Amino acid sequence: MTATETPVNNGVNVEALLGAREAVTATPDAAKFEWRATCEWQSGTHSNSTVEGFFGLGDEQTHRTRYSFDVDHPEVFASEDNGATPVEYVLVGLASCLTAGVAAVAQNREIQLRSVSATIEGAMDIRGILGADTDVRNGFSGIKVTYKIDADATPAEIKALVAQSQKRSAVYDIVTNPTDVRVEVS
Amino acid sequence: MTATETPVNNGVNVEALLGAREAVTATPDAAKFEWRATCEWQSGTHSNSTVEGFFGLGDEQTHRTRYSFDVDHPEVFASEDNGATPVEYVLVGLASCLTAGVAAVAQNREIQLRSVSATIEGAMDIRGILGADTDVRNGFSGIKVTYKIDADATPAEIKALVAQSQKRSAVYDIVTNPTDVRVEVS
Repeated sequence: MTATETPVNNGVNVEALLGAREAVTATPDAAKFEWRATCEWQSGTHSNSTVEGFFGLGDEQTHRTRYSFDVDHPEVFASEDNGATPVEYVLVGLASCLTAGVAAVAQNREIQLRSVSATIEGAMDIRGILGADTDVRNGFSGIKVTYKIDADATPAEIKALVAQSQKRSAVYDIVTNPTDVRVEVS
Repeated sequence: MTATETPVNNGVNVEALLGAREAVTATPDAAKFEWRATCEWQSGTHSNSTVEGFFGLGDEQTHRTRYSFDVDHPEVFASEDNGATPVEYVLVGLASCLTAGVAAVAQNREIQLRSVSATIEGAMDIRGILGADTDVRNGFSGIKVTYKIDADATPAEIKALVAQSQKRSAVYDIVTNPTDVRVEVS
C-alpha cells in the first residue's frame, strides 16, 4: 500500500480472526462450540424459536440480545403464514454464511467491497414431504446461489473470493454433506 | 370418537393436506416448488436477508408479508452481533420443521397436543471454519434435539409421533443427507 491509498475496510477484523486461529491451534479445547435454539410449538405448524446462549472459548456465552423467530407454513399449505418456512430459514442461513465469508476473505486479500448481494433458490418436489411418492426426497433437489458483487477487483478475483468462502463456510458444509442428528423425547 | 368426546384440534388442517397429497399425485407438476431468499451484505459479517415470494402449484406465490432477517457473528468472533449466526438459523429451521411435523402427525393420529417444546444443540469445532486444522469439518460434528411433549397419548405413541415427523421432515433430510449447491457470480 502506498501512502496515498486508503486502507481496505470491509468491517471485518481480520487480525482478531488470525489471532483466534493461532489461539485455537495452541488450545484446541477453546474451539469446541455448542450452538443452541429452543423451539416452542404455538398451534398448527406455527412455532416460535429463540436463540440466546451458546458455549465456546471454554465458557458459556450469550448474544447481545435474545433473538426470536416465528416459523410457519404458508396459506397454500392450509396454514396461517405466521413466519417464513423452515426451509427458507435454511436458505437464509446458507446465503448469509457465504456472504460473511466473502467479506472476511475480501478483507484478508485487501479487496475493497462496495456491494454484495445474493439470490438463493431451493428447488423442492413436495410429493416427498406429503408422502405422495416415497422415491422423492423431502428436502431440496438442488440449491442455486447467484452473487452480484461490486468490488475493487477483477472478475477472476471476485470468483476466487466466492470459491474460498465456500471452502470455509459452516452452512455450505452442513447442506452439502451429511450430519448426524439425534432426536430424543425426554 | 363417542358423542361426549371433544374432537382433537392441534390447529392443523389434515383434510387439506390429504387433499393436497391426492392433487399432487394426480398432477405432479403442481408439486414443483422453489423457495427463495435474497441476501444483502451490510458490513463485516452482518447481512440482511428477505423472504417473500416462492413458486408452487404451477404459479408464483407470496407470503402474507415480507420477512426480514439480520444475520451476524457474535462479539467473541470480533463481530457486532447484529443477529443470530447462520448456523443458528439452520438449528431454528430444523427444530421448527420437526415441530410442525409433530403437530401434523398428531392431528392425523387424533392425538391432542397440549404443549411441545424442543431444545436443539449443534456441536462445532471452530478450527474448521478458522482454517486451523483442515481435518476438522466446517459444519456441525453432530446435532441433538430433545423434545418435551405433553399430549393425550402414551410415551410410546409420543415417541412414534416424533419418529414419523423425522421421516417427513424437509430440513431433517437437508441436514442428514447431501444436497447439491451451485454457487455462481453473475
